[in-house]
Amino acid sequence: MPLKYTVNQESKNNRARLGLIRTCRGTIETPVFMPVGTQATVKTMTPQELEELGAEIILSNTYHLYMRPGSDLIAEAGGLHDFMNWQRPILTDSGGFQVFSLGDLRKISEQGVQFRSHLDGSKHFISPEKSIQIQMDLGADIIMAFDECAPYPADYEYVRESSALTTRWAERSKKAHNRADQALFGIVQGGMYKDLRRQSISELLELDFPGYGIGGLSVGEPKEVMYEILEDLIPHMPADKPRYLMGVGSPDCLLEGVLRGVDMFDCVWPTRLARHGMVITKEGNMPIRNSSYARDFKPIEEDCPCYTCRNFSRAYIRHLLKANEVLGIRLTTIHNLAFLMYLMQDIRQAIANDNLNEFSREFLSRYNGKK
Amino acid sequence: MPLKYTVNQESKNNRARLGLIRTCRGTIETPVFMPVGTQATVKTMTPQELEELGAEIILSNTYHLYMRPGSDLIAEAGGLHDFMNWQRPILTDSGGFQVFSLGDLRKISEQGVQFRSHLDGSKHFISPEKSIQIQMDLGADIIMAFDECAPYPADYEYVRESSALTTRWAERSKKAHNRADQALFGIVQGGMYKDLRRQSISELLELDFPGYGIGGLSVGEPKEVMYEILEDLIPHMPADKPRYLMGVGSPDCLLEGVLRGVDMFDCVWPTRLARHGMVITKEGNMPIRNSSYARDFKPIEEDCPCYTCRNFSRAYIRHLLKANEVLGIRLTTIHNLAFLMYLMQDIRQAIANDNLNEFSREFLSRYNGKK
Repeated sequence: MPLKYTVNQESKNNRARLGLIRTCRGTIETPVFMPVGTQATVKTMTPQELEELGAEIILSNTYHLYMRPGSDLIAEAGGLHDFMNWQRPILTDSGGFQVFSLGDLRKISEQGVQFRSHLDGSKHFISPEKSIQIQMDLGADIIMAFDECAPYPADYEYVRESSALTTRWAERSKKAHNRADQALFGIVQGGMYKDLRRQSISELLELDFPGYGIGGLSVGEPKEVMYEILEDLIPHMPADKPRYLMGVGSPDCLLEGVLRGVDMFDCVWPTRLARHGMVITKEGNMPIRNSSYARDFKPIEEDCPCYTCRNFSRAYIRHLLKANEVLGIRLTTIHNLAFLMYLMQDIRQAIANDNLNEFSREFLSRYNGKK
Repeated sequence: MPLKYTVNQESKNNRARLGLIRTCRGTIETPVFMPVGTQATVKTMTPQELEELGAEIILSNTYHLYMRPGSDLIAEAGGLHDFMNWQRPILTDSGGFQVFSLGDLRKISEQGVQFRSHLDGSKHFISPEKSIQIQMDLGADIIMAFDECAPYPADYEYVRESSALTTRWAERSKKAHNRADQALFGIVQGGMYKDLRRQSISELLELDFPGYGIGGLSVGEPKEVMYEILEDLIPHMPADKPRYLMGVGSPDCLLEGVLRGVDMFDCVWPTRLARHGMVITKEGNMPIRNSSYARDFKPIEEDCPCYTCRNFSRAYIRHLLKANEVLGIRLTTIHNLAFLMYLMQDIRQAIANDNLNEFSREFLSRYNGKK
């Protein structure tokens, strides 16, 4: 068995739960936030720095690695872990979301998706079988079924058909998968339609995956809509399998997701925000390039134990960013990832204390206060 | 006394020597290569990483820091050490070289240099007094007199006058300097004219500096010309003061410089080269972006103990560089700086063994062989 999930504690007043995911390469405490290493590197970070932050699993993107440097090359390197020298667990997505994001560059059929490369315009075709083959070449510990992510907004009929296609592709993905050291997750679709979401999970359950992604959320809909979908869907998901809300990572969404029963998250948000000069604090997000920080010699957060806050001032970080120095985005990235890692630790502690509702209320009122 | 220099060993067969520079913030083994942190950061590196590489002193650029973020701001931060959180020794240049490099944007007079900012075109004036004031604000351990660096080629008369101006400016620099915890070095000029070089040092000697920079070399002249100037000049420099060859840092120049009696070097060469995808190896410089390294899973150098070579392959580094990932230039920068740090260690060991001539011959024949 490539993956073993155990629930260690369930909240009394909400659907949050503490769990452990065991893989061949190590154990992951859930709820967990997974930093994203799109091109076989979490932008600006070494694997060593990620370990020091306490990251237990990272995500990498099948589409990007397939296009460059190529999954054959990574297989030749001994797989993604050896290629990037990260020996803890990795999750790869199916490439579906990235391919659909290409818009006019792609064409969907029953068989799969035809698309043109964002790098050189060359023609490619990805099917469920091909996505799984690439993910077997990459060798991540958790891999995802190939799905269609419906756009938002989309009408009922479109989403119904798209969701049914995702089920058929999930079946083909499972059939194509034959690496015993990898866990293949199915992906629930169904857009913003609760009945289609329920139908999607009930179809996937027949295929019996060791975990389930929730795809097609955080694609432009209001957050309240996403929360409603989660609230309705999750009671229909199996309690003994991890639930992974794909592409979600802002502090409010993490908290609301955990409260509704989500175990896993990933998002480029903290690292992308960092490269745009925005740092996350308990008082809200801080545009540290602003001139008001020019002579502010305090750390980003006084009580933050991250490398950035222990060693450098807002004024220095601002200077680095203004001067386009790489160290600037390194320091903001470290802080933003550390912020989310510490937040997830606090969330797990609050679940253990069965006071996540209170923790969440207090955190969010402070975080949203100055936003 | 802010700086104490002692010679511990002199070579019998050449002018190389082992020494120690003691400053308030630590001891520097010479001959030494100083990584350059132009804008209060050695590009892509944290101070912690520089310490791990064994860097005992770094250089920072007065002109750049004066323009951004401003020396007043850095003084308010408690000086450059605190601002960038590097507690080992720092050397700042005088800003002279950078200002002269502005070309049409500057105008030299007896009083100083009028110039326009490379950032916003704003008008500025730097005199010897102003340069020293800025350097006192920055608070480096070793600072440099304000000099004029004559261009190459330049006719005798121009260089004679320029060199005489540098002497007058050295005197004014010294008069303006009053921080007891900083050592102020004079700078020898005189272009490619041996008699002017000798005249320059003899005039500076009357001002009695605790160390001497050799400026105006590596400005476009053939390396042989530079070596000849060093060979003629250095016997006229005091044996009990450190000699600092400014802006020089390729392996061949380091070796030839040390053999002729140089104690200190600095250069952006290794870090700039790294950002252009070129890594230094004992077999010559390697353009690691080349397709021939796409599936080369060896480290840059098998026997290199740096973080990059211990953890990552040429293929991975090439992928990162091709994909414009920051980690790529981080890894090449670490390796290139480590290469020069290890080379300086080897050079010091060879001096201790009194076999630098042999070491140099062997190193250079291997290094130049594949260039």
